[in-house]
Amino acid sequence: MSDSFSVADLGRRAKSAAPILANATTDIKNFALLAAADLILSRKDEIIQANLEDLSLAKDVLLDSAIDRLRLDQSRIESMAAGLRQVAALPDPVGEITHGWTRPNGLEISKLRVPLGVIGVIYENRPNVTSDAAGLCIKSGNVAFLRGSSTAINSNRSIANILRDAFSKEGLPKDVVVLLEETSHESAVEFMQLEGMIDCLIPRGGETLIKSIKENAKVPYILDGSGNCHVFVDSSAQELMAIDIVINSKTSRPGVCNAAESLLVHESIAKSFLPKLAQEMPSVQMMGDQATKEILPSVSLATEEDFATEFLSLKMSVGIVQSLDQAIEHIRHYGSGHTEAIVTSNIENALRFTKEVDAAAVVVNASTRFTDGEQFGYGAEIGISTQKLHARGPLGLTELTTLKYVVIGQGQIRK
Amino acid sequence: MSDSFSVADLGRRAKSAAPILANATTDIKNFALLAAADLILSRKDEIIQANLEDLSLAKDVLLDSAIDRLRLDQSRIESMAAGLRQVAALPDPVGEITHGWTRPNGLEISKLRVPLGVIGVIYENRPNVTSDAAGLCIKSGNVAFLRGSSTAINSNRSIANILRDAFSKEGLPKDVVVLLEETSHESAVEFMQLEGMIDCLIPRGGETLIKSIKENAKVPYILDGSGNCHVFVDSSAQELMAIDIVINSKTSRPGVCNAAESLLVHESIAKSFLPKLAQEMPSVQMMGDQATKEILPSVSLATEEDFATEFLSLKMSVGIVQSLDQAIEHIRHYGSGHTEAIVTSNIENALRFTKEVDAAAVVVNASTRFTDGEQFGYGAEIGISTQKLHARGPLGLTELTTLKYVVIGQGQIRK
Repeated sequence: MSDSFSVADLGRRAKSAAPILANATTDIKNFALLAAADLILSRKDEIIQANLEDLSLAKDVLLDSAIDRLRLDQSRIESMAAGLRQVAALPDPVGEITHGWTRPNGLEISKLRVPLGVIGVIYENRPNVTSDAAGLCIKSGNVAFLRGSSTAINSNRSIANILRDAFSKEGLPKDVVVLLEETSHESAVEFMQLEGMIDCLIPRGGETLIKSIKENAKVPYILDGSGNCHVFVDSSAQELMAIDIVINSKTSRPGVCNAAESLLVHESIAKSFLPKLAQEMPSVQMMGDQATKEILPSVSLATEEDFATEFLSLKMSVGIVQSLDQAIEHIRHYGSGHTEAIVTSNIENALRFTKEVDAAAVVVNASTRFTDGEQFGYGAEIGISTQKLHARGPLGLTELTTLKYVVIGQGQIRK
Repeated sequence: MSDSFSVADLGRRAKSAAPILANATTDIKNFALLAAADLILSRKDEIIQANLEDLSLAKDVLLDSAIDRLRLDQSRIESMAAGLRQVAALPDPVGEITHGWTRPNGLEISKLRVPLGVIGVIYENRPNVTSDAAGLCIKSGNVAFLRGSSTAINSNRSIANILRDAFSKEGLPKDVVVLLEETSHESAVEFMQLEGMIDCLIPRGGETLIKSIKENAKVPYILDGSGNCHVFVDSSAQELMAIDIVINSKTSRPGVCNAAESLLVHESIAKSFLPKLAQEMPSVQMMGDQATKEILPSVSLATEEDFATEFLSLKMSVGIVQSLDQAIEHIRHYGSGHTEAIVTSNIENALRFTKEVDAAAVVVNASTRFTDGEQFGYGAEIGISTQKLHARGPLGLTELTTLKYVVIGQGQIRK
């Protein structure tokens, strides 16, 4: 793909490949994914070479953590290929008939699962997303229209070209993967506004990207939202279970959206529970409300801001509540609608919590960290939605599709 | 509701009523809907009085057709009450468990259907929508936050107050129905931007409203889109069936979105079919391409614009195509993704058409006019979506809900 193509030109190319891919059989899509996995491995030197160029340009510009995310070594390239094979092995959502019925006048109506068309993916400095996102799009019958970061452009171009070569060898149009190589801010905005060419936009990135999409996007999008997740330890909680769940939710991978950020403890158990937890979780810096400070004097006083923050680090806000109602009310106020957990032995409280808390996932007696496509058994995910329309929670292959009504008659007209 | 409440105040009131309504049982919601139907009938004089005020203010401002839409007489008020009873009789979508499975680690995961929360409805000069929309929202567990037109404000206020009285008599908060009485353009824009207070916005109106929502809305929305619907008469079509279907699709109610606007005819049948159709459908003004004009010399020559227009009147663009592929390509170019029909006796062509045409509904051997919540058997609809995300086609009660994952464990943590 030459740089001379405008954003709209590329959009038109993506759009024109969409009907062909939408009607490709599962076999063709799977062969294409396996061929792409093979070609990524056999041309890995090309990818590493391109990545070295990116790394050398980035070394004075990016932080070490970002450099690490940018780096592609042998093992990461193998993971990309393995990811494509794994997606090939997943069931194809396209073609499922989710419902079907016959009307009194004899019309047969069914709802058929079909691809969305063109999925736009905007992502930051992680070149492996080029391959991961393309794999999920192709399997679900959608053209992958990709826009990565400027810092990863050589790596992204190299991976996209290999994918395009592999897919076209298997009979699909090259343009089932289209990479926007222009990486200016203006081109990103133009990308978000390609009405009629992008059927669904999915951002993979932080707050700034999300904000820009909310402000600028004119195409439909699914937001991979933030997670200010809570664990509520109810009065009837088993203390050892609660300690395990809080520690796992908070510390097993603090930088991800399904990590817990806030702990609520019922006042009747707090005096016994909090000191034990603090002892078992010394690595976490707690910010507590006044009641928490009375039990754990060494914690700092939590601000309003602390309760509202997704730390993504080893920090946790802690509040003591007098009732389940107060816990639910706190979560309603501060939660981001991602994952909310209760630890309890009381079935009524478990039922009320799962019913009344409004979030993508409500969890009883387990870690918040399970809200994840892989953990739910979906095999792969392209993100986790905190919005309510279209898709909520882990975005698997099914969430990359839509439904179409197929109506079969024998000459019926409407009276 | 006093006019002194700001748009945001009203949004907060709607939001705070949402959790209570979301957790109301089906019985409570049904009793409330039946009570509202009764109260609308017993206070119908109040509604008629308010409507007379609107009519007297409107008589020098609105066209006759708009005055007719604004008028509420005995029979229209009875229809509103009957609509509420009909919605009460429909199955409640809330509480359905759409899937459930157990993971290898013992976690039990289920997907539970829940209300969206607050549904904002912006509508034009039809006061009956106040009651119709509120009924669908309440039944699906959603607060109805309504914004009607200035011309119908007295009628809308009167209906909303009656609904609020009836619902609160049955134990629901009054604010499960909130009417924004401020009807300036600025207040409409503010309404569309109430992030965090409106979970889903549904417009019921024409192009101008849709355009304003696309430009201004910051809350999620579902568009009730336009329908440039086609009927394709294939070479193998039964001519009498095709004539019935074209006439029904075009003329049974030309002003609605599922009416056909464009006719495509296979060249091998055109010479025989078109003169017969023209004779049977004299009320329709046809604009045809060059090949059509050669068969029907009296039709005017269709412009590019004619093929792209949703006439919503007794006009129809007509094109002759050389193949199914050309018909599909034409529909891909000009269609609006609403309803596309083929008349054919050839199963391969029927399959290809339903597979390759990308629309909310694809129809074989039946009228386009069947794309409708009532006709599909949904009992009621709040619109017809031409978007692909969340809901496509008729919007019934189910489309006014979302899903939530409920995860039940016995202390599981993530390894």
